[in-house]
Amino acid sequence: MIDPQRYPRLSRIAVPADLREFPEEELPAIADELRGYLIEQVAQSGGHFGAGLGVIELTVALHWLYETPVDRLVWDVGHQTYPHKILTGRRDRIHTVKQKDGVAPFPKREESEYDTFGVGHSSTSISAALGMAIASQRAGADRKVVAVIGDGAMTGGMAFEALAHAGGMGEDPDGIEPNLLVILNDNQMSISENVGGVTRMLGRLTGSRTLNALREGGKKLLGDKHKPAAKFVRRWEEHWKGMFVPSTFFEEVGFHYTGPIDGHDLPALLGALKTLKDLKGPQLLHIITTKGKGYELAEGDQIGYHAVSPFDPSQGMVNKPGAKKPSYTDVFGDWLCDMAAADEKLLAITPAMREGSGLVRFSKEYPQRYFDVAIAEQHAVTLAAGMACEGAKPVVAIYSTFLQRGYDQLVHDVAVQDLDVLFAIDRGGVVGPDGATHAGNLDLSYLRCVPNMVVMAPADEDECRRMLSTGHCYAGPAAVRYPRGSGPGIPVQPGLDTLPIGEAELRRRGAHIALLAFGALVPAAEQVGAELGLTVVNMRFVKPLDRALLLELAATHEGFVTLEDNVVAGGAGSGVAELLAAEGLTLPVLHLGLPDAFQHHASREQLLAEAGLDVDGIRAAVQARWPRLPDAAAIMDSSRRA
Amino acid sequence: MIDPQRYPRLSRIAVPADLREFPEEELPAIADELRGYLIEQVAQSGGHFGAGLGVIELTVALHWLYETPVDRLVWDVGHQTYPHKILTGRRDRIHTVKQKDGVAPFPKREESEYDTFGVGHSSTSISAALGMAIASQRAGADRKVVAVIGDGAMTGGMAFEALAHAGGMGEDPDGIEPNLLVILNDNQMSISENVGGVTRMLGRLTGSRTLNALREGGKKLLGDKHKPAAKFVRRWEEHWKGMFVPSTFFEEVGFHYTGPIDGHDLPALLGALKTLKDLKGPQLLHIITTKGKGYELAEGDQIGYHAVSPFDPSQGMVNKPGAKKPSYTDVFGDWLCDMAAADEKLLAITPAMREGSGLVRFSKEYPQRYFDVAIAEQHAVTLAAGMACEGAKPVVAIYSTFLQRGYDQLVHDVAVQDLDVLFAIDRGGVVGPDGATHAGNLDLSYLRCVPNMVVMAPADEDECRRMLSTGHCYAGPAAVRYPRGSGPGIPVQPGLDTLPIGEAELRRRGAHIALLAFGALVPAAEQVGAELGLTVVNMRFVKPLDRALLLELAATHEGFVTLEDNVVAGGAGSGVAELLAAEGLTLPVLHLGLPDAFQHHASREQLLAEAGLDVDGIRAAVQARWPRLPDAAAIMDSSRRA
Repeated sequence: MIDPQRYPRLSRIAVPADLREFPEEELPAIADELRGYLIEQVAQSGGHFGAGLGVIELTVALHWLYETPVDRLVWDVGHQTYPHKILTGRRDRIHTVKQKDGVAPFPKREESEYDTFGVGHSSTSISAALGMAIASQRAGADRKVVAVIGDGAMTGGMAFEALAHAGGMGEDPDGIEPNLLVILNDNQMSISENVGGVTRMLGRLTGSRTLNALREGGKKLLGDKHKPAAKFVRRWEEHWKGMFVPSTFFEEVGFHYTGPIDGHDLPALLGALKTLKDLKGPQLLHIITTKGKGYELAEGDQIGYHAVSPFDPSQGMVNKPGAKKPSYTDVFGDWLCDMAAADEKLLAITPAMREGSGLVRFSKEYPQRYFDVAIAEQHAVTLAAGMACEGAKPVVAIYSTFLQRGYDQLVHDVAVQDLDVLFAIDRGGVVGPDGATHAGNLDLSYLRCVPNMVVMAPADEDECRRMLSTGHCYAGPAAVRYPRGSGPGIPVQPGLDTLPIGEAELRRRGAHIALLAFGALVPAAEQVGAELGLTVVNMRFVKPLDRALLLELAATHEGFVTLEDNVVAGGAGSGVAELLAAEGLTLPVLHLGLPDAFQHHASREQLLAEAGLDVDGIRAAVQARWPRLPDAAAIMDSSRRA
Repeated sequence: MIDPQRYPRLSRIAVPADLREFPEEELPAIADELRGYLIEQVAQSGGHFGAGLGVIELTVALHWLYETPVDRLVWDVGHQTYPHKILTGRRDRIHTVKQKDGVAPFPKREESEYDTFGVGHSSTSISAALGMAIASQRAGADRKVVAVIGDGAMTGGMAFEALAHAGGMGEDPDGIEPNLLVILNDNQMSISENVGGVTRMLGRLTGSRTLNALREGGKKLLGDKHKPAAKFVRRWEEHWKGMFVPSTFFEEVGFHYTGPIDGHDLPALLGALKTLKDLKGPQLLHIITTKGKGYELAEGDQIGYHAVSPFDPSQGMVNKPGAKKPSYTDVFGDWLCDMAAADEKLLAITPAMREGSGLVRFSKEYPQRYFDVAIAEQHAVTLAAGMACEGAKPVVAIYSTFLQRGYDQLVHDVAVQDLDVLFAIDRGGVVGPDGATHAGNLDLSYLRCVPNMVVMAPADEDECRRMLSTGHCYAGPAAVRYPRGSGPGIPVQPGLDTLPIGEAELRRRGAHIALLAFGALVPAAEQVGAELGLTVVNMRFVKPLDRALLLELAATHEGFVTLEDNVVAGGAGSGVAELLAAEGLTLPVLHLGLPDAFQHHASREQLLAEAGLDVDGIRAAVQARWPRLPDAAAIMDSSRRA
């Protein structure tokens, strides 16, 4: 429970209506308490840290000024919503964030009526808010709708699409201008440093304060812009500004631009918001904030403090000494540097995930061959296709969930043209604490149906490296899909050996039933196979499948079990069944995989167990289908007796 | 063969090297011949018409000035590349465009070395060209790379992502500025009229010619911008321009902007291109053209002449009288208006495909409920999600192939939140003459794996209407996926009846084998079933499947045949096999569907037959798997005898 001594005001705020009871003068003090409480709580629980600290003042101002939840706040990405969650009924549970049955790390409609839109992937907020504004207007509801989007998220193409749509609506004689406020929270950071032309563009806006003052002067004249006099003034103002002041991109697409202002200056923020609240049409407020604001260590290391493990706030994060098992991300990062040394044709692309995808070392060692394209998955994939046309060998390092953003480009620009692009897909399968929006549960299904693709899933770290080499050397589109975190701990050999395409690995020759395991489930399958005396195969290739081995096993076994950390629907196991059907075989097949449902946030292990994909679950499922198999105890007994 | 009397110059141009033999003064005459030849040929063959006529001068200028194919031209979308194809070795075959084994309607790498990048979906050219420019630079090749993109394609978010990446590269101390020329071909049209903020933004650029003259003045000073003196001049120029001239969006993201100039004025165009050819760094040339230029009827009806059926050039297109079978698109368009009349919560969204998706009538009758968001599929889907949050019932009308662009948004913004959005998916399955980039062969696979989705495929026109009503009334995400063109011709009933979710329709009770047909393959299955005395089911729902019926049929039949116009991998039939496996059943299943390969352009009927999905193919496949079934002739004989 919150300590009323340390948090005399915040302890009295359960929901925004309580906040709105406070007079405006007390808001800075409330912001201070909120900041202190957030640091205290997240230091204890871990979670997203820097982004929330950057929007403390904004969160307080918005909930105080707007009638939430009737008015709609849409937070982009959602890393930044812990302060929002604290002010909207989840103050006393925020320490459970990311844990099973705890508070979700991102806004979630099921969790709270104040979470108007579930987010997780970036750049969606303007589209969603515009949809809400339009639908509310059409339904005659007088709601305000506010989207808060970071400068990082603004680099995503769909944010641009939404701005252009909203800004252009007033031009259409049939259109009704949407009442929409977009707040651009500009901290020059997403998870990593921002790059590219959008950053450059915003930098210019921020830089030219004199011109902005000049621009602001003109705005004072404006009232309801639908009145003819105001329209005339606006037109005159635009003309005048066009002559002397560089119009901003936002104005060019039809937004009314205000800013930039200091997003930590509550009175200034409230002043601007009060003015904007009653204006009609699409408005953009540009605020400048500091990620990690108010916690010095986080301000100084914004990437490191984006998301944290529990730490002592008086000390900051301490790197734990000792050998840690390398994660799959580490394996990828090392392989990338080694292969780059061996093959100068290798180029690497990341959509703004240098740290998460393991590209930090590569970016330093090979800066000329490293391309951070900002949050721009569509472009990332087609850029790679263009590179491959010139004989380069591009590697697209991307999270499974974000590859969904580049799906069309993968199909049309890479696979249709059979181009030599390697997709290094991190966070495939169950991801865990970040919840459904970050899950990689669908990738084997949506990749397997694409002609020309080679799709691999490694059973361990060493195999991951060999598959990356295999995909790199294969002259066509290939994907290696590996899970979050670390694997079984198999030491990684330094070479750049490849695997034969489409060849599975028989791990254990047993009897009755063959367990056909894909990727991360191989170790569990191996254990169950050993216990029950079954055959175990590390399938390695989701596409193409090892037809020869499958036919041989079909002829010598009574049934197949397919195992994968992907949904069963259309997954790797489904491919095995298709192969059997095509051969006219009718062997019984049991498909074990993820359910046809979105999984809530919990640890990876919890979610796998929930889906019956841990050793106990797999054993139970096999025994339930084939009850007459010798059971584990009997085998153990007999082996002890032998 | 081309007539050397009428085309004295063009008849001597087989490849661009021939064009480059002509002196500059003759280029306007060559352009005139090229225009005449294009009109003559496309009037005869049908195909894309207006876009090509708009880039005649540009095509001649580019191939004359650049060393194609060593220098790379990347044409966005590719509607506009017939003149390019005529000048690059395909002059005498252009009349075969879109036909099986004929010239492809879009650039295709396999077809010609001058087709540097296969396109079909819009907004990819800058990404691809940037990839080529980067990879060429890294490989030490001194190529020029030019992307030609329309203003319509510029509304797609990925074009923005690519511009921002290219423009920002020079800011990075490690970056090498790419040598890339982007030509913005601004004709205020895509296939339909353009809308939104991008159009507004470009309109302002086009409008302010005085200011552009001022801007151009400054450019003359520029040489190689990497020289220190030039850098100083550039900075000074930018500062000076910033004071007096509105900088353009393109300059804000880091491009050097030239324009706008008249794209039909060959000398002006050549002058600009000559200057730009030797400049380093990202350049943007803005040209203004007229779609359909030089054929008066096409200039006057740019939407009608976007793509044409064969016509007499002296007459223009004539609407053929007489009753035509309504297409599925027509069925959708009528349903949309009728349902909108019955339910005021219905809102409809199109990503720039008003005509193609059948929304013309709706856009006129319900302008306040009609949203053309420009070429912006990502935004279209999330906009719908936002609307659904407010209780509206949005319908996203989209082609199957373009929905791939909104896949992440469908998964995360709609399905994860279980929001009430209906996807009306046109051009599902085999599409035909537009080739692999327009095929809808994957949609059942990539939709079926998404939790919460209801996925339907109609057997005929009337059922399509009922499914649309069903999806609209269902309070969650639903998709109705229907093919290009017309169906079997079943009269459409005017009501707004719904179907029970997940219930299939037994069309014919036979013996031995059950044919389980999805969507467009129901009529062929019914014919084969009647011939061979088999059971036939119109499955209706790809998800959820009719479990009860399938179990009953499994108990009473010796085998199942699944039929779908989707790839077999992960498709609807694969779902049937998964259901049987989950029930522990081992009935033989034969999956008939599209191959695991991209299909080339040909007619829909040709492609279905090639895939064995016409009546003959289906019959042969069933008889090959079950050779002991009574054959058709025997049944016909016995029925004749009876």
